[in-house]
Amino acid sequence: MPNPDHGERTVTLERIEDAAERLNGLAVQTPLLESAQLNDAFGMRLLFKPECLQRTGSFKFRGAYTKLSRLAPDQCERGVVAYSSGNHAQGVAAAAGLLGMHATIVMPSDAPRIKIDNTRGYGAEIVLYERHAEDRRAIAEEVADRNGSIIVPPFDDIDIISGQGTVGLEIAQQAGDMNFDVDDVLCPVGGGGLLSGIATAMAAKLPKANIWCAEPVGYDDVIRSLAAGRRVSAEVGAASICDAIVTPQPGSITFEIMKRHVSGGFAVSDAEVADALAVLFDRLKLVVEPGGAAGFAALVQQRARFAGRSVVVVLSGGNVDRQAYAGYLARAGGLDTVQAG
Amino acid sequence: MPNPDHGERTVTLERIEDAAERLNGLAVQTPLLESAQLNDAFGMRLLFKPECLQRTGSFKFRGAYTKLSRLAPDQCERGVVAYSSGNHAQGVAAAAGLLGMHATIVMPSDAPRIKIDNTRGYGAEIVLYERHAEDRRAIAEEVADRNGSIIVPPFDDIDIISGQGTVGLEIAQQAGDMNFDVDDVLCPVGGGGLLSGIATAMAAKLPKANIWCAEPVGYDDVIRSLAAGRRVSAEVGAASICDAIVTPQPGSITFEIMKRHVSGGFAVSDAEVADALAVLFDRLKLVVEPGGAAGFAALVQQRARFAGRSVVVVLSGGNVDRQAYAGYLARAGGLDTVQAG
Repeated sequence: MPNPDHGERTVTLERIEDAAERLNGLAVQTPLLESAQLNDAFGMRLLFKPECLQRTGSFKFRGAYTKLSRLAPDQCERGVVAYSSGNHAQGVAAAAGLLGMHATIVMPSDAPRIKIDNTRGYGAEIVLYERHAEDRRAIAEEVADRNGSIIVPPFDDIDIISGQGTVGLEIAQQAGDMNFDVDDVLCPVGGGGLLSGIATAMAAKLPKANIWCAEPVGYDDVIRSLAAGRRVSAEVGAASICDAIVTPQPGSITFEIMKRHVSGGFAVSDAEVADALAVLFDRLKLVVEPGGAAGFAALVQQRARFAGRSVVVVLSGGNVDRQAYAGYLARAGGLDTVQAG
Repeated sequence: MPNPDHGERTVTLERIEDAAERLNGLAVQTPLLESAQLNDAFGMRLLFKPECLQRTGSFKFRGAYTKLSRLAPDQCERGVVAYSSGNHAQGVAAAAGLLGMHATIVMPSDAPRIKIDNTRGYGAEIVLYERHAEDRRAIAEEVADRNGSIIVPPFDDIDIISGQGTVGLEIAQQAGDMNFDVDDVLCPVGGGGLLSGIATAMAAKLPKANIWCAEPVGYDDVIRSLAAGRRVSAEVGAASICDAIVTPQPGSITFEIMKRHVSGGFAVSDAEVADALAVLFDRLKLVVEPGGAAGFAALVQQRARFAGRSVVVVLSGGNVDRQAYAGYLARAGGLDTVQAG
């Protein structure tokens, strides 16, 4: 298919719509789900966009497939490389498998067995490295140089962002079908691929909606960058259960988009995230990973601000180990706790 | 709204379509979900109908709302009574709340706190009884006599079955939209309300599809009744984790329908159900209760029989306590285990 590039270096609605066409029939059009109990409890109308139900268990498949499907034939033949311990790895591996491309994924040797197995299960070649002794980027570049293949970046890339933006396109379409007049969208943010993609689509389709982000306490680089008007880094060192979104700094392309379209954000603690994840278990029957539940945790924290409004909360992924998940459930409060909190 | 009864005592497509209209905008149109990994693992094309995402966490809301919305005005004023420790209680309570009717739910005093709280949360009045010392039916009848109200039966009722049948209507519609040519439908069965509703809708819309049921070992009354051609009871006494579907005998209306349209069934063990539930956690990111996962457990058990086919598996509910769920996950195998099993 032709690449609607026209040489511009930004994400456009046209690019996102092109991504949606590429993904049609391959990505899950995740539904907008609603819980009457949660609406009542919080005094607002809430819809959830559960990307945990997406192919590979997170939104990452959308961007990875979009990127890989736009590569030139000679690039396809030489394959792709990515480094990731989690959702991006699975997204790239699954996309490469569907397109018949070779993928090498550089993963830490101590990554959860299930994530390594899943990534290999999609047909990717795994290169393990020692997290504390080796530089994954250097390893990936070495593989890429040897094979003449490209590295698929996790977020700061026009094609990746366009693919993730299809989440925003679907929100606008589905909310319209439901006569749901979106006031606000809350979304977890790591490097900003998903958030900037959604923000671009919403700016074109539902420009009145406010876009908000949620980050783990200690990794609030996007919130602080938005406040400063320039990219600043988080003082990394804090621990967080939100492994999917503990990026130290926004991307340069993603930050330019977020600066234009994102109203602000909220930092959430591990305890708030665990409570959110447990309420999603109790009320929505969805398995959401900690990072994927950060947007809902932010909504709960800020429920007074959003009272009376029509809000879409993006649940960005569900790749969490059974044992870890059971631990979060065991320690978390319920809807009563979070309402009283 | 007029009741399209015409005096007949059977479930018709017309009645199911009327139920779908009543439920429009109130019940969730649950999506059909797919996992590429599960398709590959089992060598078939599998779609899941996740009624765990339904209002109140199970399909029961569909039938309860349909039933209550068809009551005459004088009946509405006198309210309704139901006895149930689980999903039916929540379905009736939520439906009554939406219709502004009073509901009394007779529940065992040792029912899980969350189920009692949820039922009360929907606005119902709870009457607790001692499971081993009192007869819940007698208590319900006493309440009904006192108030002149009707008892809402859990499954053996034309209106209830019509409401549950909207699941089948949606399967036919959604599968058609996806160009998915349904060969088989697998569905958990207790008293048969859901199964006979789905079977009626499918017989009208996709008559070539085979309908199969899944029951817990020790509660295989439907399977044995179908084989015998008459209603027989399970030899109750066995324990089962599938609390939602441990009924001792099919209903009389539901059995007549099942006899016409259901090809047969499969009994599944607790261990098979727990494995199924864990694979649904791992791969689909859905919280499914044990009884709700019985259809998938049967599919896994019978995967050789269904190889190469296009199968819809109904996941009927997701109301499970956190602690119990964590326990199932901890003891269960994964996809590798169930494939090798």
